[in-house]
Amino acid sequence: MSLSRQLAGFIAWTRYEDLPAETVAFTKLCILDWLGSALAGAAKPPVRMIDELARELGGSGQATLVTGGRSSVANAALVNGAASHVVELDDIHKQSIIHAATVVIPAALAVAEWLNRSGKELIAAVAVGYDVCFRVGEAVSPSHYRFWHNTATCGTFGAAAAAASLLRLDEEQIVHALGNAGTQAAGLWEFIVDGAMSKQLHTGKAAMNGLLAALLAQKGFTGPSRILEGERGFFRAMAETVDESRITDRLGEHFKITENSFKIHASCRHTHPAVDLALKLRQQSGIRTEELRRIRVGGYRSVLAITDNPDPQTVYAAKFSLQFCVALALVKGRAGLADFSGETLHDPAVRSLMERVELTLDPDVDAAYPERWGSSMEAETVAGEVLRLVADYPKGDPENPVTAAELTDKFHDLAAHLPEDTRRSYLETILHLETIADVGRFWDERSRVS
Amino acid sequence: MSLSRQLAGFIAWTRYEDLPAETVAFTKLCILDWLGSALAGAAKPPVRMIDELARELGGSGQATLVTGGRSSVANAALVNGAASHVVELDDIHKQSIIHAATVVIPAALAVAEWLNRSGKELIAAVAVGYDVCFRVGEAVSPSHYRFWHNTATCGTFGAAAAAASLLRLDEEQIVHALGNAGTQAAGLWEFIVDGAMSKQLHTGKAAMNGLLAALLAQKGFTGPSRILEGERGFFRAMAETVDESRITDRLGEHFKITENSFKIHASCRHTHPAVDLALKLRQQSGIRTEELRRIRVGGYRSVLAITDNPDPQTVYAAKFSLQFCVALALVKGRAGLADFSGETLHDPAVRSLMERVELTLDPDVDAAYPERWGSSMEAETVAGEVLRLVADYPKGDPENPVTAAELTDKFHDLAAHLPEDTRRSYLETILHLETIADVGRFWDERSRVS
Repeated sequence: MSLSRQLAGFIAWTRYEDLPAETVAFTKLCILDWLGSALAGAAKPPVRMIDELARELGGSGQATLVTGGRSSVANAALVNGAASHVVELDDIHKQSIIHAATVVIPAALAVAEWLNRSGKELIAAVAVGYDVCFRVGEAVSPSHYRFWHNTATCGTFGAAAAAASLLRLDEEQIVHALGNAGTQAAGLWEFIVDGAMSKQLHTGKAAMNGLLAALLAQKGFTGPSRILEGERGFFRAMAETVDESRITDRLGEHFKITENSFKIHASCRHTHPAVDLALKLRQQSGIRTEELRRIRVGGYRSVLAITDNPDPQTVYAAKFSLQFCVALALVKGRAGLADFSGETLHDPAVRSLMERVELTLDPDVDAAYPERWGSSMEAETVAGEVLRLVADYPKGDPENPVTAAELTDKFHDLAAHLPEDTRRSYLETILHLETIADVGRFWDERSRVS
Repeated sequence: MSLSRQLAGFIAWTRYEDLPAETVAFTKLCILDWLGSALAGAAKPPVRMIDELARELGGSGQATLVTGGRSSVANAALVNGAASHVVELDDIHKQSIIHAATVVIPAALAVAEWLNRSGKELIAAVAVGYDVCFRVGEAVSPSHYRFWHNTATCGTFGAAAAAASLLRLDEEQIVHALGNAGTQAAGLWEFIVDGAMSKQLHTGKAAMNGLLAALLAQKGFTGPSRILEGERGFFRAMAETVDESRITDRLGEHFKITENSFKIHASCRHTHPAVDLALKLRQQSGIRTEELRRIRVGGYRSVLAITDNPDPQTVYAAKFSLQFCVALALVKGRAGLADFSGETLHDPAVRSLMERVELTLDPDVDAAYPERWGSSMEAETVAGEVLRLVADYPKGDPENPVTAAELTDKFHDLAAHLPEDTRRSYLETILHLETIADVGRFWDERSRVS
């Protein structure tokens, strides 16, 4: 039986009732976390351009754009997929290097809204979509990532899976949907050299392409039956080494969505364990920043390579400066989206403290990487006291999970531009999604940004 | 200067006035040939499904669908790109293994119609679009073709180039358009194992994706500046060997569109040289089929491997049966789209003659392949006369060109379902395209099929 067919059976037959309670709860948090990112990203320049394109092309009012108004499900997937990836705070699965939310959820939500599916069906579709793309991503990791943006390429399968679930396709149709998802899979890393906007195009298009594959399959459109393992298929063309067993290992028994990591801080993930320790230091010791003589952060090699910047000149660069992030966390007690601003970038208290932050290689931390993205911290006070802290995993990894309350705070932060009652209404809907009979009423029209 | 920037300069600065007269004349024939294929394919099942999808999604009435009515330029590119590839009679460039018409022209025509561009601008855009995708295809040939459907992947660059030309993008914008075309490039050969419908999805999506890249670039959306040669770009990710010089060799001096081949017969290209000889035999010798005792066709290895089928059971299989195609040509004096039918498949005259067609390997013909797709033929009459014929290139190759009259006949054949005055009106428009002030009036609404 082809890998596609095994996945198709899983997609066709998995119902809300098959999901463990913790998977349901976790999936709702993924949807909440996604919405925060989408709302926060809706007004960013690349998203505005894609939104303008979608409006120019037009489309029937099947689904809501996070930028406001309604269009086709394809345009909704495109725009909402682009919007939810731009502030770089969306979730991440380490093993497959995939941000699943930004591809799977826009496709799923558009179909669920259009067809007035229940919250339970949406939850099942999202869990299934995550599962499928994580499996594909793990199978081709790490070689695929050398050239390909896993979130876009492997994500296309996840979007197709979620859409297929909500379209209630049968197993045969889903084989075709997966085939035509894989043959549309695209997204090269080359854009990163220029810092180009392609990153958001990749996620929007992956959501849209997966959805198109599922919609076509519903009409009888056929695709390759062995898109993954075939002689001229995805694996052979796009990965040097492949572990096919990852596709089917505990398929339908273990839902991989719960392996997902969340980002709480609005900075580069490599700064997170040190930021966590800075917040812990501030909270536990009650120490004031002027009492700190020196903070020595011990990181793994990539932390030094990527985040050692003692003098960032832009807000974007500040998110990749460990010195800035640690000082910010110590001064403000948080490092959320709103905390990275022109104001904090030049805040004398932050700048003064940054001069006391040192970055060194910690051999123990480095040895544990990349299984553990940890950090050590040694804080010396002017009084000569030395405080030592260690983190094995950044906050938000499954081994160091966030609480629903922390994700709720993050949501309020990301959606701060919306009225509080709108935010509360979304929280109410999503955190009780299994009780919602009609996802057609998911969106609050007050959330429009344009 | 990056390869994209060199191509962008060429795209931005090439005007109708820069094209040699023979290039203009040839480009118009390409457009005519494309329209015939698009009209002939409009009612085929995969196209109907894609058309149904486009109608479901909706879109503003910017451009005409060959299936009838108007929708967005993106939907027009998608539907028209799918329609023009399904009857397998669209043009082919041997060196790059690309069917350019089916990807470049749908994108170009949609924009030209929408923005009421002139016929001259459309001609220049199509010539430029062909040139760009042929160059990309040659650069990655033959290794890319192992996994990738060149028409779809390389074609995306051609669609972006043609759309960019008609959108009158500047050089900088075109760099971004090419970057985001390349990062969307997709289309794996795996579908061929199943004979799946993905082939038409590939061409439709390539046309649409290239167009989207150009439309986004117009809005300021950025893309990778070195999509072709970059470390994580198209060449490294998708080809084992690359000849970068093909991108710029005589760029702007030699317009490669004139290297294009046309298909006159509605069968597999490997049968064409033998069909040409059969037609020549019939025409020159005036021989009647009952006078023929034996026809021995000498082909190259691929002819034997792919087209040696003495008893095809379907119309589709008949197009890949050399025995059938040669017999059909001898009996009917032609092998156009309408000649492959359930009726001719079981025509006793054709079947009887097929039994007298032999297929052998001709070492001379084989040695010349793949530079020359030739054939030999030895016909023995019941009276004992032996006639020998040789073809170096199939009719429609640049070395054995078709005439405008032959392509006009082919157009009448492919569009036979339309009223004759509609066909004549299209011929009039296209063969005098440089005199048309507004391509917004290209389409004849009587050509609707649905």
